[in-house]
Amino acid sequence: PKIVTLPGDGIGPEVTAAAVAVLREVAPDVTIEEHLIGGVAYDTHGDPFPQVTRDALKDADAVLLGTVGGAQDSAWNLLPRHLRPESGLLALRKALGCYANLRPVRVQPGLEHLSPLKAELARGVDILIVRELLGGVYFDGDRKIDGDTAYNTMRYTTPEVERVARVAFWAAEQRKGRVTSVDKANVLEVSELWRRDVTALRDREYRGVHLNHEYVDSVAMLIVSDPSRYDVIVTENLFGDILSDLAAVIPGSLGLMPSASLGDGAGLFEPIHGSAPDIAGKGVANPAAAIMSAGMLLRHGLKRPEGANQIDRAVALALREHPTRDLGGRADTQTFTRAVLSALE
Amino acid sequence: PKIVTLPGDGIGPEVTAAAVAVLREVAPDVTIEEHLIGGVAYDTHGDPFPQVTRDALKDADAVLLGTVGGAQDSAWNLLPRHLRPESGLLALRKALGCYANLRPVRVQPGLEHLSPLKAELARGVDILIVRELLGGVYFDGDRKIDGDTAYNTMRYTTPEVERVARVAFWAAEQRKGRVTSVDKANVLEVSELWRRDVTALRDREYRGVHLNHEYVDSVAMLIVSDPSRYDVIVTENLFGDILSDLAAVIPGSLGLMPSASLGDGAGLFEPIHGSAPDIAGKGVANPAAAIMSAGMLLRHGLKRPEGANQIDRAVALALREHPTRDLGGRADTQTFTRAVLSALE
Ligand SMILES: CC(C)[C@H](C(=O)O)[C@@H](O)C(=O)O
Ligand SMILES: CC(C)[C@H](C(=O)O)[C@@H](O)C(=O)O
Repeated sequence: PKIVTLPGDGIGPEVTAAAVAVLREVAPDVTIEEHLIGGVAYDTHGDPFPQVTRDALKDADAVLLGTVGGAQDSAWNLLPRHLRPESGLLALRKALGCYANLRPVRVQPGLEHLSPLKAELARGVDILIVRELLGGVYFDGDRKIDGDTAYNTMRYTTPEVERVARVAFWAAEQRKGRVTSVDKANVLEVSELWRRDVTALRDREYRGVHLNHEYVDSVAMLIVSDPSRYDVIVTENLFGDILSDLAAVIPGSLGLMPSASLGDGAGLFEPIHGSAPDIAGKGVANPAAAIMSAGMLLRHGLKRPEGANQIDRAVALALREHPTRDLGGRADTQTFTRAVLSALE
Repeated sequence: PKIVTLPGDGIGPEVTAAAVAVLREVAPDVTIEEHLIGGVAYDTHGDPFPQVTRDALKDADAVLLGTVGGAQDSAWNLLPRHLRPESGLLALRKALGCYANLRPVRVQPGLEHLSPLKAELARGVDILIVRELLGGVYFDGDRKIDGDTAYNTMRYTTPEVERVARVAFWAAEQRKGRVTSVDKANVLEVSELWRRDVTALRDREYRGVHLNHEYVDSVAMLIVSDPSRYDVIVTENLFGDILSDLAAVIPGSLGLMPSASLGDGAGLFEPIHGSAPDIAGKGVANPAAAIMSAGMLLRHGLKRPEGANQIDRAVALALREHPTRDLGGRADTQTFTRAVLSALE
């Protein structure tokens, strides 16, 4: 199998290198090809998602991404929107047809103390957030800034809602069988459609799954104050962006949040943290989320659950013994990565 | 001065009665007139914001609201959108011209243990969230659900951004002098306008205030994991809705979150919690947020800061000695209210 890695900007290259080292160990037969995305791709090719990268994806079985983007005051942010690093990432998601973004939130036994929540709240948390990734306000073409007015449009169609809801119901069937669909149906028509279609799909095809609906403002509060009430959460693109970053509070750091984006073709696997320009190049970034994303790549992209489990166990061990700085520890990227490598059985 | 109270639905009447009892004690000269809003107004008048309520607001100096809305499966939710309880609330906000919604998030000394956060994180938190309340995706007329497509439009104009940003800068000048403006400018044109206009206003008129910009997903995480980094937060309607409910996690309960909505005319003062249909009518709701909202009414609506301070101190005392059930205590609504009344100096 062939994997394309796209290290990207900021700490992307450092954490991707760590993930690649682990992948090579667990799946030595895999071919790895590295390409550019984001700000570095713009700097080299004048395009944050250049044709050479697009071409390389054609026969890829899975894609491992680092991070894209610069500091708030980076020169990239002065470019026209379609040339900025983030647009490269959005174009990549679109090109791969990855409409379902899976973001697991798990507190490993023995790692409750890393959470800013009281240990009894953090203990045993195991939530899967399924974020719709190709629709809503992110991709709708009806958007404009013009003089003293600007707008964006949050749009969904029934097929878009159904395909991501299917992933959530399917995941719930492998887990505790509960799905919470999140919307703002008391205010938004687009949420009314979302709620109606998710409900209809459940009634038609997933009667064994328990479905309930909650408002996004309420979930924002409850997911941190009472996380154990959730099994699978499914929601639209923007709400999913906010809720999944927020949920990183529970394990204690964005550095512990991997993700898998699944859809029509090759899956895309990436840590949910950003490019952290303040620490880029210093060798201190926490590579755990990137390494766990490589684990998700093995599980969902290459259907090698044993390899994925091996990685998850090794990361949990390394976190216990060599916590990185974002977790209040002292391990740098290399120390942590070595700890993972030597914990692989 | 004349105050209109709108108890509304669910626990609204119970918590409003508590707030009124406290108001009568602290400001005995105030005239109080009660009217209908929300589901109960629909049941009586066929309109969630009936003309008789509209008329009563004309000579009001301030409005004290309870809550509106029913359970998720309430018959009200089957009505056409403009007749639902929430539409009554949105129409009220519009009628009063309340564009700036102030939501203070404060952890009183000695009440850190009520927070699900570790005490050292909760201690001393004092954030003011300023939410734009009349624009964005809530009010834009360009919205539709039709067959298998639906959309809403998130729109802002420069005057809308400036008027609410002014309130944030003004508030920061009375506080620690720092404003964080929250947007999603890496994806949304409407955020680009927001960021540009907030920055320009600061550069023109509030050079003494320190302004920075953060993305909404990042703030969702940081506001709970590192709350002391924030002084004043200003953001658009939907982001403000989500972030302020979320911020209720910090003090430990939505029952501790009052709000003031200011604008062109009489201010609107309301707890940010919902109608809690599961406990409505049982006499166990926490009235602290409603009582503190009455405090904000005295401060911002009637310019009586001494009365407001009196209420804040009494509520803090009552919370320490008679915590309600949402806070893990045993006090019911009446016990708590009596404790506040007897703590008034
Ligand atoms: C960088 C940005 C465009 C992106 C998003 O909002 O999707 C990021 O926040 C994420 O969650 O992956
Ligand atoms: C009830 C609802 C319309 C309302 C809102 O979203 O504004 C509520 O959540 C709030 O925050 O006051």
